[in-house]
Amino acid sequence: MSSSAHLDQLIEALCCLPGVGQKSAQRMALYLIDKNRDGARKISSSLFTALEEVKHCDLCRNFSDQPQCRICDSHKRKAEILCVVETPADVMAIESSGSFQGRYFVLFGKLSPLDGVGPDELGFDLLEKRLKEESIEEVILATNPTIEGEITAQYIADLAKHHGIKTSRIAHGVPMGGELEYVDGGTLMRAFSGRQNYD
Amino acid sequence: MSSSAHLDQLIEALCCLPGVGQKSAQRMALYLIDKNRDGARKISSSLFTALEEVKHCDLCRNFSDQPQCRICDSHKRKAEILCVVETPADVMAIESSGSFQGRYFVLFGKLSPLDGVGPDELGFDLLEKRLKEESIEEVILATNPTIEGEITAQYIADLAKHHGIKTSRIAHGVPMGGELEYVDGGTLMRAFSGRQNYD
Repeated sequence: MSSSAHLDQLIEALCCLPGVGQKSAQRMALYLIDKNRDGARKISSSLFTALEEVKHCDLCRNFSDQPQCRICDSHKRKAEILCVVETPADVMAIESSGSFQGRYFVLFGKLSPLDGVGPDELGFDLLEKRLKEESIEEVILATNPTIEGEITAQYIADLAKHHGIKTSRIAHGVPMGGELEYVDGGTLMRAFSGRQNYD
Repeated sequence: MSSSAHLDQLIEALCCLPGVGQKSAQRMALYLIDKNRDGARKISSSLFTALEEVKHCDLCRNFSDQPQCRICDSHKRKAEILCVVETPADVMAIESSGSFQGRYFVLFGKLSPLDGVGPDELGFDLLEKRLKEESIEEVILATNPTIEGEITAQYIADLAKHHGIKTSRIAHGVPMGGELEYVDGGTLMRAFSGRQNYD
């Protein structure tokens, strides 16, 4: 219990943040109220605005302020390549790498029947509609290399095949700058099975 | 850049939190918007309320919702013992240990002429007024054992002496559960110089 009930409520609210416990929440609250009131105001108002304004894009399901997100709406992106990812964080990672110029489809999860996540929850109906109606030539499967991720990729590959669209899977192997010695067995197995001709 | 400008603004705002970088801020923003909108609402509103309502206590300078904070206002606290600390976090630590039943005075810093922090910034005028007007019998100096903390303690001790009030300094030494082998030299020196009779 601190000397102020409002401060206690703020500390309790900040505890819900991922990776933030009682002690960090207390540090954050005191910092915001004591040292950075402008920052506190910005967090409060941007959170409020985001809660009100951020919806899902009608095309890719990613977060968006408009019916269509900035990426789907951009004329600079190639409409014929579609990259399917699990989460908005994946889109951010790919975007900041600058390695992809097409459009996305965000599943917000992966097939996981035990957790009650089936094709309906992942928007496969919307994905199929896009595969049917748009002139997509290639679907890049960028789900994570976990068992559920692989099954989800397989499911989408079948869907694309059904519509006569080529699919590809992003490469998995030894990460750049990684040393073979410290790479796990599963990754090494993928690195060997996915080896390519070297001229 | 994410697919939503409002989301980008939220991520940027969260970056101002202590110990939170771009990647953690992104994780927090996505978690709040995607998985915990109730929590997000709580953070936004409790921040807003705290910014509006949290002021300083007229007596101890600590954060407070009322002119006098919950601790100064409580009849259960001994009015004759005053503990002087540097920050509100120190009060929280002492309160949660349950080791003190008196009242506090929070300096919000320590004497540090090079940083422009003198007696005026630390509310010494208010402290002296309390020493003069209240029936305080003992001032416990609980500033940190740093050079500035010690100088601040010395300054307050002189002030209390001037008003004929007894002062004491919290003990510094080997922490409970700490092993001598891993305790630094400065702490050991304090532990030896502050040794007490053992019967």
